[in-house]
Amino acid sequence: MNLPARPAVGQFEGGSVFIDGAYAPLSEGKISLFDWGFTRSDATYDVASVWNGAFFRLDTHMERFFASLAVLRLQVPYSRAELREVLHGCVRAGGLKEAYVAMVCTRGVPPRGARDPRLATNRFYAYALPYVWIAPPDKQRSGIDLYISERQRIGPESVDPRVKNYHWIDLVQSMFDAYERGHDTSCVVDAHGHVTEGPGFNVFTVKDGVVRTAERGVLEGVSRRTAIELCQRLNLPLRVAPLPAADVRDADEVFITSTGGGILPIAKVDGRPLRQFPGPLTQRLQQAYWAMREEPAYRDAVDYR
Amino acid sequence: MNLPARPAVGQFEGGSVFIDGAYAPLSEGKISLFDWGFTRSDATYDVASVWNGAFFRLDTHMERFFASLAVLRLQVPYSRAELREVLHGCVRAGGLKEAYVAMVCTRGVPPRGARDPRLATNRFYAYALPYVWIAPPDKQRSGIDLYISERQRIGPESVDPRVKNYHWIDLVQSMFDAYERGHDTSCVVDAHGHVTEGPGFNVFTVKDGVVRTAERGVLEGVSRRTAIELCQRLNLPLRVAPLPAADVRDADEVFITSTGGGILPIAKVDGRPLRQFPGPLTQRLQQAYWAMREEPAYRDAVDYR
Repeated sequence: MNLPARPAVGQFEGGSVFIDGAYAPLSEGKISLFDWGFTRSDATYDVASVWNGAFFRLDTHMERFFASLAVLRLQVPYSRAELREVLHGCVRAGGLKEAYVAMVCTRGVPPRGARDPRLATNRFYAYALPYVWIAPPDKQRSGIDLYISERQRIGPESVDPRVKNYHWIDLVQSMFDAYERGHDTSCVVDAHGHVTEGPGFNVFTVKDGVVRTAERGVLEGVSRRTAIELCQRLNLPLRVAPLPAADVRDADEVFITSTGGGILPIAKVDGRPLRQFPGPLTQRLQQAYWAMREEPAYRDAVDYR
Repeated sequence: MNLPARPAVGQFEGGSVFIDGAYAPLSEGKISLFDWGFTRSDATYDVASVWNGAFFRLDTHMERFFASLAVLRLQVPYSRAELREVLHGCVRAGGLKEAYVAMVCTRGVPPRGARDPRLATNRFYAYALPYVWIAPPDKQRSGIDLYISERQRIGPESVDPRVKNYHWIDLVQSMFDAYERGHDTSCVVDAHGHVTEGPGFNVFTVKDGVVRTAERGVLEGVSRRTAIELCQRLNLPLRVAPLPAADVRDADEVFITSTGGGILPIAKVDGRPLRQFPGPLTQRLQQAYWAMREEPAYRDAVDYR
């Protein structure tokens, strides 16, 4: 597959999409109403971030994207090197030093009347937007109030949670639950009442110096993985095990991990203040996260020349 | 909300969309890549059908659509009478005597950086396509082979199945399972191994003269409801109760119900021929279905003048 020429820096100032094999302004970012990516949410995606002019762990995000594609039996017409070129191109075209960068593949539209997904030509999209925080910076400082909804996350028997997917009605409805009760964001549980994940983030607790996060039925987030690795680097005791809702409410510290913010401290759970906010271990991990982003091994600098 | 003028018959021959408050050709049927209807599958829809120039049970489809909207806290800017006008308009514009007619509402795009779904302006779309059969007519005659996948349908604790939704990765993956094993279509099960539904249809069995279909965890399809009502009219014993996979395999007759075909007989389950194909009760119900479509109480004729 031939790639277009590298776009000029700021050619589509503020954000750019890559669609039908070409760079374009965000307003051209549209998909067909008849694409199964919409009518069956038969799609996968991944999101990497750019901070201070460089991607973080882009290889890891691309690796997960290709793994998700394989599970759903989707294909993109690009090699990993080409995909990297396209993602860098979107950031360049948008002239963005801090960016939210998405890669998306949908099933496409099967021939008229056909219902066999194998007959559809899969579609690929990418885009770069200004960096998105999972909670705005002023709210991060004043303290995020996390609501534990009783809604259950779609089970791993139905949709493999390791495949990053757009099946989010449960998560969006849990956000309504949270907002209507005056909380800032939400997380959902599994059939046993264990906390799984929130809309776009994983959940960690700290109790008596031990860091804990859910083991299964959750997205294996790159930021989650980074937090786990940072615990190992900092010699913090870590347990990857089911996370009962009661333990989240009773934790000393709670933090969430997301591409949209890295590691963010939680101040309250269900409206009740946690013992420590921002917690000392959360702060150590948060500082280590931003430092790790600057390490050459994880940094993939965008060429803005 | 002002509606546009009624489109000319055949103005967009072969199919038409209603988008941004206007009728347009199918090629203009696109949604934003950033609409939560895509990125979170935060949307609901319904599909009615037109046969022999008339909608069937359009009121019932619209009633379910408005009920789905209420559960997801979505709103369309149209009254029921206006919605009916739009759907009729799509069929007129497409010049279609037999049509698949969809109404869709998505969350829309929240303001940049905001994550509160209450801040998004919901979007409405409708379209009419040539009638879609859930299985092509020649396959209906030669005999559909239904594969019972071990995949589990997304549970009602996560996504209310009575809300018609696009969370279909489980169903699409079950279609791959079926196609790769040489079967024609698929259905999925619940956590107890009971058959729930297939991609776009409900499942019925007949055993020793008793008709049976799943009770919960399934879409409450309008065609399913019609089949249930027809059993009552024809004095056929009916049980609405869990449907163990073994009972589907051991049934005398199996049929599926869908807006895309009404009532269709199944010939084989997991490749093994059923005792009766097409089964006598299935045939009686199928004939009654097409006759019911012509009854004035259920028929809503399109004005093609």
